[in-house]
Amino acid sequence: MSDLDQPVLWRRPVPLVGDATSAAERAAGPRDWAMPPDVRDALHAVIEARRDIRRYRPDPVPDDVLERVLLAAHAAPSVGHSQPWRFVLVRDPEIRDRAAVLTDRERLRQAAQLDPDAARRLLDLQLEGVREAPLGIVVLCDRRAAAAGVLGRATFPDADMWSCATAIQNLWLAARAEGLGVGWVSLFDVDAVRQLLHMPADAKPVAILCIGQVERFYDEPMLQSEGWAKRVPGALCVDENRWPAPLADDSR
Amino acid sequence: MSDLDQPVLWRRPVPLVGDATSAAERAAGPRDWAMPPDVRDALHAVIEARRDIRRYRPDPVPDDVLERVLLAAHAAPSVGHSQPWRFVLVRDPEIRDRAAVLTDRERLRQAAQLDPDAARRLLDLQLEGVREAPLGIVVLCDRRAAAAGVLGRATFPDADMWSCATAIQNLWLAARAEGLGVGWVSLFDVDAVRQLLHMPADAKPVAILCIGQVERFYDEPMLQSEGWAKRVPGALCVDENRWPAPLADDSR
Repeated sequence: MSDLDQPVLWRRPVPLVGDATSAAERAAGPRDWAMPPDVRDALHAVIEARRDIRRYRPDPVPDDVLERVLLAAHAAPSVGHSQPWRFVLVRDPEIRDRAAVLTDRERLRQAAQLDPDAARRLLDLQLEGVREAPLGIVVLCDRRAAAAGVLGRATFPDADMWSCATAIQNLWLAARAEGLGVGWVSLFDVDAVRQLLHMPADAKPVAILCIGQVERFYDEPMLQSEGWAKRVPGALCVDENRWPAPLADDSR
Repeated sequence: MSDLDQPVLWRRPVPLVGDATSAAERAAGPRDWAMPPDVRDALHAVIEARRDIRRYRPDPVPDDVLERVLLAAHAAPSVGHSQPWRFVLVRDPEIRDRAAVLTDRERLRQAAQLDPDAARRLLDLQLEGVREAPLGIVVLCDRRAAAAGVLGRATFPDADMWSCATAIQNLWLAARAEGLGVGWVSLFDVDAVRQLLHMPADAKPVAILCIGQVERFYDEPMLQSEGWAKRVPGALCVDENRWPAPLADDSR
């Protein structure tokens, strides 16, 4: 990954709407920093087409593709510009197999705590691709810096974990554009993964990402097709000026 | 925001590379779900051009733009497909002013805990735009569901907060494509904001987002230009198979 800090071709300046005008003219209009409509549409197309994928082809992920995907992750925002994300590429078959055992074990442990119907559904879901995916990336948060020393983390000590989540989202979108499926696996024991990768105690694993070419991308989220969880109507997620007043049937 | 669940024009199917071939031919190649290079390049251009913005023009954010931005947020991944994000649009001037007072107070409180030089730098930074930005969005995580009932949250009870972070990242990218600046403010007291917005105890504010048209987008992150934090070389964030072995100068 020694090329990660070299300039790459697609890091070109983005053409602005109204580029043919002078800077003074551009500054006159509030929408002049908008990107062209085809750029905007492309972004939304990628956002809409992204899926959590659990089945992969064995084809390897080409290095140039992987590099673009990691550069996207590294361009994420971070609290106090701390860039706390670390990406461990897991290609060693032995380590991958041990990671797969960890996720299997955690799934069985959690199923044992559910009622029989939910447990059956949990075990039926194709949840991990840790063995099958040609590439695993363990995303870690390096928490060795004290929260008080990072601008913005004094209020929210976990904001560094949120930064790692935004990096994963950038990675996920970049992977989708390349036709790569990504599955975010969180069914694992933190300490076991930490030991497996020789991590210090103050580095925290956020995700095991399984990455690979796909047979297909589905039209809707897998957990939705499987009846596990429904899509929340967007309008229910947006309010004005305050949390919505309690409804009559809301026990709170 | 009643249109949030209506189909919108840009939710069109994405043209696939090799679209002129049959499905059987497409299935033969592992890269066939890749999007066209111009879509990929557009995504990377937006990711690279996104900045944390703290100065805004007063021009209002048009409704159609805001809707696209919120739809992008709502299309984010979430643990167990739980979609825990809620967006409170703060347009009421009185509430915005009270929120601004809260962020001012928190900044002074934190500056008082720093050494004089760091405190001066903290107070010099243009950190909030809560008063100036034409739109504030408080992003909340609705945590009323028990973690054990959400697939994936049994291992990581905070995974719902990470889902909210991925929604914010989608929102941020969509806003950048529209030429809108976004600033993620985290200098506030959680309980004070909770009271201000009449939130239940188990809804947690993740961010106050300030949103508006900008005078300009900078070439590099503001905290980098201001000398607060440097960009970490990408190669230092990527390792293979394990956390890097301790260096000689690494006290751990």
